[in-house]
Amino acid sequence: MARTTQRRPVTRLRVGRAAVVRPDTLAAEEPLEIRVAGRAFAVTMRTPGHDFELAAGFLVSEGVIARREDFAAADYAPGRLADGSNTFNVVDVALAAGVAPPAPELTKAFYTTSSCGICGKASISAVRTVSQHAVVGDPVTVELERLLSFPDLLRERQAIFDSTGGLHAAGLFDAASGELLVLREDVGRHNAVDKVVGWALLNDRLPLTGCVLQVSGRASFELVQKASMAGIPVLSAVSAPSSLAADLADEIGLTLVGFVRGESAVVYTRPDRILALDAPAP
Amino acid sequence: MARTTQRRPVTRLRVGRAAVVRPDTLAAEEPLEIRVAGRAFAVTMRTPGHDFELAAGFLVSEGVIARREDFAAADYAPGRLADGSNTFNVVDVALAAGVAPPAPELTKAFYTTSSCGICGKASISAVRTVSQHAVVGDPVTVELERLLSFPDLLRERQAIFDSTGGLHAAGLFDAASGELLVLREDVGRHNAVDKVVGWALLNDRLPLTGCVLQVSGRASFELVQKASMAGIPVLSAVSAPSSLAADLADEIGLTLVGFVRGESAVVYTRPDRILALDAPAP
Repeated sequence: MARTTQRRPVTRLRVGRAAVVRPDTLAAEEPLEIRVAGRAFAVTMRTPGHDFELAAGFLVSEGVIARREDFAAADYAPGRLADGSNTFNVVDVALAAGVAPPAPELTKAFYTTSSCGICGKASISAVRTVSQHAVVGDPVTVELERLLSFPDLLRERQAIFDSTGGLHAAGLFDAASGELLVLREDVGRHNAVDKVVGWALLNDRLPLTGCVLQVSGRASFELVQKASMAGIPVLSAVSAPSSLAADLADEIGLTLVGFVRGESAVVYTRPDRILALDAPAP
Repeated sequence: MARTTQRRPVTRLRVGRAAVVRPDTLAAEEPLEIRVAGRAFAVTMRTPGHDFELAAGFLVSEGVIARREDFAAADYAPGRLADGSNTFNVVDVALAAGVAPPAPELTKAFYTTSSCGICGKASISAVRTVSQHAVVGDPVTVELERLLSFPDLLRERQAIFDSTGGLHAAGLFDAASGELLVLREDVGRHNAVDKVVGWALLNDRLPLTGCVLQVSGRASFELVQKASMAGIPVLSAVSAPSSLAADLADEIGLTLVGFVRGESAVVYTRPDRILALDAPAP
């Protein structure tokens, strides 16, 4: 995928050394317009690649579709660059017959409702109302040692990060076997997660019962929302979660883990799913 | 600002040790609805605090206002929580007489135009067209050693990060004196930059000629766009920029620096503004 990176000359400066001009590799970023039945729905800045997954996953995150059978097809819309070539930056999704197209202002509906002043509580109840895949009853458990291995497994497989140092990653693991099911990278952490969720939808694997979503950075409300919409019971982040991420995880019964580093991790909600030795401290 | 953090019990797990339940501090995240003249314009998930700056800076980033005199006032809209208390999550901005309110779909206009397939080039020319503060002619220079000191200065002053480990920071430095003019933190990196830009607008300091914007993470297209709209000539990031960030910086004549760590930095565009010793390598 040549479009996932770009080469350009840069100047490397070092204290006390001569400046060095050399080519460097950057993570690509381009706009993607997601259309539903020909109508523009959203624009996101993303790293090109796995665009149909990104579009499908975004529609899952936004509550437009929830299962493979809701999705009919995706294709690039005809491009209109000056030279006639396709930009490959517009994806049009066709929904299955009977699936309602997204209402205008749908995204905003996640954060506010007409009956209430905008607040975190309203954002949480919007997710609860819209999600079709409850995670509260998922009996999945994961050994602490296995969970601690996920960030390294992710990092080892991050192809684009290695060349650019600049990408977020999201990886889906089977909690029982520890197998990495899919890994996606993007300049935007939300896009990386949407690509994973879209991969799952296109492969008819929603809801993602028994899975752990490992992300390379922090855990925001938005990432917990995306996990919730895909029915993922465990979200694990290398860095800190926000307060609203933990509040949402609490409300929907999702296990939220942060600071997954080395030999330790911090569990914010539903710690019963993480199996750790309860030996007394030495 | 008690609302910037939240305390909650967490479970700390460590291999071979007993689980420890203890209170922990999380960075707060809450939705903010930004209204212009009573009409909803955008919703962003942000860390509460400096909300009027965030609203003002967001409007600068979106090309609605560009100077102190474009802005009349900001206030929290009356809240409607069940107990009658204000959510402090809705800010209404009044524009000065004669300033046009934002057109619907304004944000999207940054990424696409009707005459062209959506592409990075269109995104770049949209910023060029809308920005009222050109940076290409800014004669500012900054010593490499001074630039290298900015990430540590930022980190030392990050109050919320210290307690939560979970916030992005943006700091505005005077290139000539090295003085930190303002530092803002947020769960969203774009919000931290909007707060800085809004601070500058409210203090009648736009355009930010002669300044360096230091950010704690990566540099995306969006951050270069925000710097451009505020007339900031130098954007410095601790991590990698994206391809489109570098392309935009190139087009508008902004100095983009990445991987500002320890004794070295990588300059992607306009390296003439960074003064480094050109001594031959030993």
